[in-house]
Amino acid sequence: MNQFTKFENISTANALISKALEFKADPHMHPNKGQGKRLGLIFLNPSLRTRVSTQIAASNLGLESFVLNMDKDTWALEMHDGTLMNKNKVEHIKDAAGVLGSYFDILAIRAFPSLTNKQEDTSDFILKQFIQYSGVPVVSLESAVRHPLQSLADMVTIRENIPSGKKPKVVLSWAPHIKAIPHAVANSFAEWSMGCDYDLTITHPEGYELDEQFTQGADIQYNQNKALEDADFVYVKNWSAYNPYGKILAVDEDWLLTEKKLKKNKKAKVMHCLPVRRNLELGDDILDGPRSLVQAQAKNRIFAAQAVLDGILS
Amino acid sequence: MNQFTKFENISTANALISKALEFKADPHMHPNKGQGKRLGLIFLNPSLRTRVSTQIAASNLGLESFVLNMDKDTWALEMHDGTLMNKNKVEHIKDAAGVLGSYFDILAIRAFPSLTNKQEDTSDFILKQFIQYSGVPVVSLESAVRHPLQSLADMVTIRENIPSGKKPKVVLSWAPHIKAIPHAVANSFAEWSMGCDYDLTITHPEGYELDEQFTQGADIQYNQNKALEDADFVYVKNWSAYNPYGKILAVDEDWLLTEKKLKKNKKAKVMHCLPVRRNLELGDDILDGPRSLVQAQAKNRIFAAQAVLDGILS
Amino acid sequence: MNQFTKFENISTANALISKALEFKADPHMHPNKGQGKRLGLIFLNPSLRTRVSTQIAASNLGLESFVLNMDKDTWALEMHDGTLMNKNKVEHIKDAAGVLGSYFDILAIRAFPSLTNKQEDTSDFILKQFIQYSGVPVVSLESAVRHPLQSLADMVTIRENIPSGKKPKVVLSWAPHIKAIPHAVANSFAEWSMGCDYDLTITHPEGYELDEQFTQGADIQYNQNKALEDADFVYVKNWSAYNPYGKILAVDEDWLLTEKKLKKNKKAKVMHCLPVRRNLELGDDILDGPRSLVQAQAKNRIFAAQAVLDGILS
Repeated sequence: MNQFTKFENISTANALISKALEFKADPHMHPNKGQGKRLGLIFLNPSLRTRVSTQIAASNLGLESFVLNMDKDTWALEMHDGTLMNKNKVEHIKDAAGVLGSYFDILAIRAFPSLTNKQEDTSDFILKQFIQYSGVPVVSLESAVRHPLQSLADMVTIRENIPSGKKPKVVLSWAPHIKAIPHAVANSFAEWSMGCDYDLTITHPEGYELDEQFTQGADIQYNQNKALEDADFVYVKNWSAYNPYGKILAVDEDWLLTEKKLKKNKKAKVMHCLPVRRNLELGDDILDGPRSLVQAQAKNRIFAAQAVLDGILS
Repeated sequence: MNQFTKFENISTANALISKALEFKADPHMHPNKGQGKRLGLIFLNPSLRTRVSTQIAASNLGLESFVLNMDKDTWALEMHDGTLMNKNKVEHIKDAAGVLGSYFDILAIRAFPSLTNKQEDTSDFILKQFIQYSGVPVVSLESAVRHPLQSLADMVTIRENIPSGKKPKVVLSWAPHIKAIPHAVANSFAEWSMGCDYDLTITHPEGYELDEQFTQGADIQYNQNKALEDADFVYVKNWSAYNPYGKILAVDEDWLLTEKKLKKNKKAKVMHCLPVRRNLELGDDILDGPRSLVQAQAKNRIFAAQAVLDGILS
Repeated sequence: MNQFTKFENISTANALISKALEFKADPHMHPNKGQGKRLGLIFLNPSLRTRVSTQIAASNLGLESFVLNMDKDTWALEMHDGTLMNKNKVEHIKDAAGVLGSYFDILAIRAFPSLTNKQEDTSDFILKQFIQYSGVPVVSLESAVRHPLQSLADMVTIRENIPSGKKPKVVLSWAPHIKAIPHAVANSFAEWSMGCDYDLTITHPEGYELDEQFTQGADIQYNQNKALEDADFVYVKNWSAYNPYGKILAVDEDWLLTEKKLKKNKKAKVMHCLPVRRNLELGDDILDGPRSLVQAQAKNRIFAAQAVLDGILS
């Protein structure tokens, strides 16, 4: 494996899920796998869970990691070719990625979308330029379009909780938010759920349709209550509109998920990638009750990252 | 030891002081004590000395440490139960503490008081919630109410400089400042000095009385000159009023400590936790002269933290 | 070697260049040289390349490194003796340097000039005070006056590309910029180039003369085209005026370096310390073409720092 930026195929995904579960059982299984190698963690946006879980994963493999926060004005990167750099951008991504690629054996990069320039965002042009100019394996820590490490951790969590002998019904349920939120987690969750051959329903208010490349094959349902029927897993997540891009639309119905909405579905487990806005996206009753898998998902971020780094080091 | 948030009892304190002095003599006495374990250092407020000294202490024990600065707006924590999170707080302390507790074996937390909400501050509700929701041992790196690692380092420094065969007279002397400063260092110094059975005098302008739970048993003296007589150790520190809470009161007298005020007391050693406002709290003549123990205190922060981490790892 | 803040003499420089090239060939030649020792990296200004390359250099030697960013308002240092500290500066450099010197075996410090107070800047008073009060070896990570680690890396890069059997002609060529930029890189490049006995030409618009202590012995040339003739190495760099200090002067001619300006000089290699403003300081055609040594310079920062740390540890 020389890149980890999206779902590739079901056999790779299953191998990563199995490897993650092996690392969960024995995190120090390969303590010297990364010895003498270095991982650069490049953040163009803030991070807490992603940074720490990836650093712990690296440490479990004996891989030295370095964090670079480039989300401050002082290191604003110019992304466009041929620009006359006489504004506030101090360094071109070409030069920065080249240097970082010469300092590190693996780069892991977080680059959120602008939510204002749809063409640039959907081309994942920041991530792609890091890949192009760094010359080393790149792991996405959430790009404009996808958050594959989160989805891998989610798939590990589903695998741990899957009802035996059944293809699970997975529901991705839109939730309210006060800010315009990227599509990456929702896109990747859809991509991985269907890629892993789960039965996926996506429920959201009309107008919140995701990019079709990620939702083809899923059941789109505007009625949340109907979508929740018989669900084995409900993944709660906000995203902004894809069209008009990055906008928050007026929504009259109540999309907050609470126990009341699941009272007829005793078995459903509830997931969220965190951080979660309590009582806006998800009710306290669910988050503090036995349905919640959110802490398990967060813990599994370590082992998802470890499986990926192990694969790249192999 | 499963928690380090305050003075417990004299035998525990004496054991920690002795252990710290052992580590000072041989920092690498237990180089593998923390092997395979991880310490998360969570800062809700800035830190320099505390962060570095604790990281060095951890490293001396082979304990891997990770710093998380959560004092930026991007990770503002919601602290109150049942809140509808539709404002600027992005994550609830319940969820964050749960995740951090699942990533780390020990958490060390800095959480300053607001100095505006007395009830919340004096209940130490941030520290308590981290303890409640993280499920792992917690070390205070200064909470709203106490700064026990500083006080332990102070007690180590007093032990090193104590006049033999005598119960020392310790004076906590209020100093001027331009900002409203928390009570934590003063509270803890009083708690530990009396807990270690030293003769404590607290001197400050009228109106600057500390919370009585920390000062019972101490001699309160409004006349600084009188308080300084026969002092063995003078601990200089500013704090804001406890009542009215967090306010700066008008003070007419001169409370800056200089050599002139100590000219009749040749033996007194002078202490301060740093950072110190020179010539506002303490004169250059004292800080740059032989009375000053401030550098020794700062150095002892390493060994205080090392004794505490060693105790938790045992 | 007990300090690394400037060019000392040609034999020391040559030994460092050779050592850096040895480390480039075998970075893990001395993996335990720094064992049990600690390096504190103190940044009063932002850094990316310098921080990471120095941390990697330290790691290659088994030297543990800690980063302290003191460029935030919260830790603004008071630099002047005898000040009444009742303003926004929270700690005196005396106290901070003393503590840092007691925590670390080596300190490395970045302290940019103000560009407003010429006397303070040109006395390098921040760097000098860290040296005076810390009591441990100090490495400059760029001070107000010099950037010696950059220059050492530059000299390593020149050595790697030097035409055999010839004293190379080195040209330091001023470039446009939108901000007032320090003189440190230019000063040091002049100091090291002439110190290493290279033939140095400095070309810049009239008015941009550098401090004479660094330019004595160099050929000063106001005509860029003439300066570029027969150059073996062209080092492109902006700096603000030295007199009037820190100002940007109106310049009518075109000082951007492009292939067109070098069309008669096929052999010239082009250097820049990065970050570079593309198409303002240096054209894309040069940066993306075969003349450019900028990535090699950046990579050599690791081995320059490693040679210096190795020397201090010896």
